[in-house]
Amino acid sequence: MIVSQESSGQGSISLETMLAPYRDLVIRSLHEAMLPPKTTGTGESTVQSLLDEFYGQIEYHLGWRQPDLTPATEDSGKLLRPTLVLVTCDLAASYAGCSQSERRDLLERIAPAAACIELVHNFSLIHDDIEDSDEERRHRPTVWKLWGVPQAINTGDGLFALARTGLWQLAGRGVESAVVLHLAALLDLVSAELCEGQFLDMRYEGRRDISEGMYLDMIGRKTAALMACSTEFGACLGFPANADLQAQLARFGRALGIAFQLRDDLLGIWEAEHLGKTVAGDLRRKKMSLPVIHALHAGTSTDRSTLRRLLRKAGPLSEEDIGEALAILDRTGARRRIRSALVEQGRLARVALDDSVGGMKSHGNSAYLALVALLDFVLATE
Amino acid sequence: MIVSQESSGQGSISLETMLAPYRDLVIRSLHEAMLPPKTTGTGESTVQSLLDEFYGQIEYHLGWRQPDLTPATEDSGKLLRPTLVLVTCDLAASYAGCSQSERRDLLERIAPAAACIELVHNFSLIHDDIEDSDEERRHRPTVWKLWGVPQAINTGDGLFALARTGLWQLAGRGVESAVVLHLAALLDLVSAELCEGQFLDMRYEGRRDISEGMYLDMIGRKTAALMACSTEFGACLGFPANADLQAQLARFGRALGIAFQLRDDLLGIWEAEHLGKTVAGDLRRKKMSLPVIHALHAGTSTDRSTLRRLLRKAGPLSEEDIGEALAILDRTGARRRIRSALVEQGRLARVALDDSVGGMKSHGNSAYLALVALLDFVLATE
Repeated sequence: MIVSQESSGQGSISLETMLAPYRDLVIRSLHEAMLPPKTTGTGESTVQSLLDEFYGQIEYHLGWRQPDLTPATEDSGKLLRPTLVLVTCDLAASYAGCSQSERRDLLERIAPAAACIELVHNFSLIHDDIEDSDEERRHRPTVWKLWGVPQAINTGDGLFALARTGLWQLAGRGVESAVVLHLAALLDLVSAELCEGQFLDMRYEGRRDISEGMYLDMIGRKTAALMACSTEFGACLGFPANADLQAQLARFGRALGIAFQLRDDLLGIWEAEHLGKTVAGDLRRKKMSLPVIHALHAGTSTDRSTLRRLLRKAGPLSEEDIGEALAILDRTGARRRIRSALVEQGRLARVALDDSVGGMKSHGNSAYLALVALLDFVLATE
Repeated sequence: MIVSQESSGQGSISLETMLAPYRDLVIRSLHEAMLPPKTTGTGESTVQSLLDEFYGQIEYHLGWRQPDLTPATEDSGKLLRPTLVLVTCDLAASYAGCSQSERRDLLERIAPAAACIELVHNFSLIHDDIEDSDEERRHRPTVWKLWGVPQAINTGDGLFALARTGLWQLAGRGVESAVVLHLAALLDLVSAELCEGQFLDMRYEGRRDISEGMYLDMIGRKTAALMACSTEFGACLGFPANADLQAQLARFGRALGIAFQLRDDLLGIWEAEHLGKTVAGDLRRKKMSLPVIHALHAGTSTDRSTLRRLLRKAGPLSEEDIGEALAILDRTGARRRIRSALVEQGRLARVALDDSVGGMKSHGNSAYLALVALLDFVLATE
């Protein structure tokens, strides 16, 4: 993962190196946010040990525990969204004129807001895995696969309820109550939008009349909305008085999010293995991702009817079916089409980022460079 | 539903008459809270009409729509929790010395907080119905039964995300931001506690070593916590500066909530039909409710082993099994035992209520009398 010379203007610096300080802070505040809450029970010791299982399931999902709930060698995944909160906050605070030490202090104080976004994301993953019947996530059994659907629904709910814990800490850490309320309302709106997106995604499956526009609207809600929320959180916490900056960085986050999903669509069919997904998994479950939608519109009449027939089949597709579907996608140039849509979103993201902070670009600001590097990483799918 | 002379001190006034003005306000603010949120889509008209289905499912659950999503003759259920918010707010504001017109204005302004609690309750019902495989609620098919488990999980999530909409309106209605943040943090803690309770409830099923203490702890989380939250919301909004009053009214709500669940346990076995539940439904699904737990501890050795055998059976119990289980419960005096626990919680609730407002009792305050009447209603199960 090397940042190209053109983008960074700094020679070869790895993206991981640039993001590492932010990530460390994210991981620390995730653990702080997940301390068991002080709920009111009658103090039955048997109950307490049962509840350890409940919180253990959440921590299993977060990658902190094994299936038997003993501690795991931690694998928290990409942590893209909370890292975005911190990097954009850093950028916005630079733009507001904060010194490096002021920014370091600010990031420490607002890190719980970043944890909050990651936990909302993870609640939605627990439920998505049930809804999509996904048995594995990041090479491990999903929560419902280990503990059953009823418990997994409830575990996801518990995580959603606890996700905002970090937000309520901000008022005691120097963030104005009105700003915290603004963020809380925004996050709820975006959480509802996530559900709208998931609703559409499920309603699209098996339908063959989904346009590219309908698809882009859906992923805007399902994936990009929380990314836009992350960058808006960062901007708002870094420079509360600058609404323009918040709107521009939200636009950056949204375009980055759509690009991210298009990247996932490509990897979901052509190179998903390193993501811990099944190869051609999206085809197997007949998911209406953009490559398939494109082929259903752009293919020859024979290819389109073959693809429709495959998508109508009961049960999962066979290896032979998958091969046939892949050949059709190839003939319609689906991969090229998605790549060009991805590049376009990357361009929009870059414009929004550059517009947002103007002069910071030429000053070699480290947060700015990290965001550019992140964008480059999302755009590099080959 | 007649308030006894002893309790009301006002002759016979129906509980419904006393609660009607609060209920009307609750219903109005529920509708205001459920206006579709302004999420960011690309404006695809097909997407908009699909999303009407998503919000339609929520409104179906709330009793506002038919299964085909056309408007229904509204049946919003008891609305116990939001009504409690308003009545306790009224009481607390009286105690703070507010005039009747000041209180009327206050209740109008804070009604969205009451709607918020009702919506959180309803989100949990949508998910509980899936988790418990309940096919009917209030004589209508449950959301998962109509639209499938994946959509029902997601619809519940959407409702949970939107539930707090009303809370974010309070700051623009004269409630201090710090008070709103306090309520939001409390509601999240209580939502997590609901999930803890549901976790325990599911984990208890099929186990025969559940003590009465473990059971009471579980219903404290699953049912009483949100009732306590309702009365604490009301106290906090009615008299923000009086933390003692808030704690006492929270205690009142908690005892009322436990009483309410014990009442449900009685009705779930002996007289559930008018609640829209299956008769002896709790026995049918082998639910470890308090009557069963009592019988497993207090029965003769023959009765205990018979009951254990019935609870171990695969699949639902037959009519003959149910008859046998009911006879065992009768022999162990389970019904009497639960009634006496119910009366004890009623006593605790009454003490907390009377302690909270002291002198209001003798002044014939209407909010006080409504709470007493509500408590009497919960206690009357025969």
